[in-house]
Amino acid sequence: MRTTAVILKRRPNGRPDLQDFALETRTLAEPDPGQVLVRTLSLSVDPYMRARMNPGGSYMPAYELDAPMSGHFVGEVVSSLDPRVPIGSVVAAVGDWQEYVVLSGGQVELLPDREPSPDIYLGPLGMVGHTAYVGLLDIGRPVAGETVVVSAAAGAVGSLVGQIAKLKGCRAVGIAGGPEKCRYVVDVLGFDACVDYRATDFPDTLQAACPNGIDIDFENVGGDILGAVWPLLNNNARIAVCGLIADYNQEAPSPAPPLVDLLTKRVTMHGFLIMDHADRLADFRRDMRRWLETGALSLRSHVVRGLERAPEALIGLFSGDNLGKSIVQVADRREAPAQP
Amino acid sequence: MRTTAVILKRRPNGRPDLQDFALETRTLAEPDPGQVLVRTLSLSVDPYMRARMNPGGSYMPAYELDAPMSGHFVGEVVSSLDPRVPIGSVVAAVGDWQEYVVLSGGQVELLPDREPSPDIYLGPLGMVGHTAYVGLLDIGRPVAGETVVVSAAAGAVGSLVGQIAKLKGCRAVGIAGGPEKCRYVVDVLGFDACVDYRATDFPDTLQAACPNGIDIDFENVGGDILGAVWPLLNNNARIAVCGLIADYNQEAPSPAPPLVDLLTKRVTMHGFLIMDHADRLADFRRDMRRWLETGALSLRSHVVRGLERAPEALIGLFSGDNLGKSIVQVADRREAPAQP
Repeated sequence: MRTTAVILKRRPNGRPDLQDFALETRTLAEPDPGQVLVRTLSLSVDPYMRARMNPGGSYMPAYELDAPMSGHFVGEVVSSLDPRVPIGSVVAAVGDWQEYVVLSGGQVELLPDREPSPDIYLGPLGMVGHTAYVGLLDIGRPVAGETVVVSAAAGAVGSLVGQIAKLKGCRAVGIAGGPEKCRYVVDVLGFDACVDYRATDFPDTLQAACPNGIDIDFENVGGDILGAVWPLLNNNARIAVCGLIADYNQEAPSPAPPLVDLLTKRVTMHGFLIMDHADRLADFRRDMRRWLETGALSLRSHVVRGLERAPEALIGLFSGDNLGKSIVQVADRREAPAQP
Repeated sequence: MRTTAVILKRRPNGRPDLQDFALETRTLAEPDPGQVLVRTLSLSVDPYMRARMNPGGSYMPAYELDAPMSGHFVGEVVSSLDPRVPIGSVVAAVGDWQEYVVLSGGQVELLPDREPSPDIYLGPLGMVGHTAYVGLLDIGRPVAGETVVVSAAAGAVGSLVGQIAKLKGCRAVGIAGGPEKCRYVVDVLGFDACVDYRATDFPDTLQAACPNGIDIDFENVGGDILGAVWPLLNNNARIAVCGLIADYNQEAPSPAPPLVDLLTKRVTMHGFLIMDHADRLADFRRDMRRWLETGALSLRSHVVRGLERAPEALIGLFSGDNLGKSIVQVADRREAPAQP
C-alpha cells in the first residue's frame, strides 16, 4: 500500500521555509496483528514542532531528516487487527503526517461514537486544552480577583487560558499581534483587555491594562513580551512558562529579565510540559466537557485544507496567521458506520 | 540617656566602605509605658543589608542616611515598663545598631531562661536557620538520593542548608571561595563535596562533583555561579532563590541563564523571603532544636568584637571573610539574675 507523506528534507535556519519540506509517496506495510490502519482526517500543527526540527531536538527527539513529520491527529480506522479497535472507529493518536498511518491498537484513543466534531480532540479536549488547564490551574493557581496575563492570546492555548481565567473570576489580559486579533480576544473570547505587542507604546498599554499589576503570567512567547510583563509582576506572582516561541527560530535565546526581581517579589517561575501531567487528564476532560456543553467557551479553528499544505500551516504559526487552533484537514470523514 | 550608634553616612557605590559609616553618640528617650530598654549583647550582619543601603531599598525599606543601621540582635533587658518582660530577660529583636535600644515589649522575643548561648538566635535558631529550613524543605522539596547544590556553602545559611540536606538523605555539594573554605565545608560540615568557584576549572569540577546532575539549587549568589549550575540541572529541578549576593554590589544585574532550559527541563525557580514564612517558625524551631540537641549539626560563628567594628563585619561578608554566621559581639552578658 502507498501513502502520501510530508517529509522533513532540511533543517531550518531560523524560521522554517516551504523548501524544508517535500511531499513524497511512501510504501506502508500492512498492519501486523495488534495493529490498525488509520486514515488521517485532521492533523494538528503546534509551535513545539519547530524545536523538534533542530538537530538536537528539545525535550522530544529531533525529527529525522528524510522521514515524515509527525504529531497529534485524528483519523478513522479502515482496517484493524486489534479486536479492541473496530473498523470505522474515530481515533486520536500521535503519528506521521501521512494520508494513512499504521499504529498499534494501544497507541490510539477511541473517540466517542458519532462525535460530531472529532477535531475538538486536537483543540480544547486535546493536548492544547490540557496544557491551558494544567498551566493555568496547577502552575498558575489563580485566585478570584487576580490579574492573569496571557501572551499569544489569540492562539490555541492562549485563547483557552484567558477564558478559563474568566471562569475562575480573574481579570484576563491578552497580548496579541495587531488590532484585529486584539478585537477578537476581547469581543469574541471575552478577555477584559488585549494589548497589541506590535504597537510602539506596548509596555505602557500593558501597564494601563493591568492597573493592579500582574499575579499570573501564562507565558507562551518570552523575549521582549516577557520583558514588558516583568516589571508589572506583583509580589508572589507565578509565571507558567508554557512556550518561548520568540526563541524557537533564533540561534541565541533572548536575554532573561533581571533575576533580582524574582527574589524581591517572591516570584515563582515554572516551566512545564504537558506530557508530565497525565494524572490530570481525567479532571481536565471532565471540566472542559462541562464548559463546552454549557457554552462557556468560544472556540475558533484556523483550518487549512490538504495534507500538502501542512508545512504552510506550520510556518504560519510563526508569522501569527492563526486565530485559535491551527488544524490541517486532510480528508473528509466517511459516512458514520451503521448502528448495530 | 546617651548611647553609641553606628550611623549610615553615605550610600555605597558598589561594595560598602568604612567611610560609609560613622560612630556617633545619640540621645535615647526614656522608655514609655509598654516599652523596654535593652542592652545589646550581639548583633547580626547579613548580606540583605547591602540592598537596604541603596536609595530605593529592596523588599525592605532603605536605611535612612544619618540614622542608625539596624537588624537582628540579642540583648538583655535593663529597664522595663512592660510587665511581660522582666528586667534581666535575654531577648531577640530587630533594632538599631546601638549599645542600648528602646523597643516596645511586643517587639522582643523572650529567650529561654539561662540560655547558655543566646547568639544561637542570630544563627541556627534565628532568621538564618529559618531561611535554610524553609528554602530547602518547602521550596526545594528534597527527596532522599537527590543532589543538592548550595552556593556560599561556608556562609551562615549555606552551611545549614547542606547539613539539613544530608539529614534528608541527599548528596550535598557546596560551592565556596578558596580551598580553605572548601575543606571546612567537607571536613567539618560533612558535605559530600565542595567546589572552589575561584578555580579556573570551576564549571568542570562542579560537573564532576555532580555525577547525577543537580536536582535542587539553593542559590545564594547568582551571576556566574548560577551560570555554572544551570546546564547541570536535571528535569524537574528546583531552584530556591535565597540571595543574589553577586548582584548586590553591582549597578547592573548579571544576565540570567537562557530560559528555554527552564521549559525543556521543567525547572521551578522560586524567589523567597523568609518574612513570608512565619507559619513555619514553630516547625522549624522544633526540628532545629532537636538537631542541635543531638549534635547533628556543626556550627561555627565568625565573631567580631565591638560595636564600632560592625561596619567592618558587614563589609567582610562581601569579600568572603566569614566561615559560618557573622556576629558582632557588642557587650558581655551581666551575671544571670538570681533565681527566685
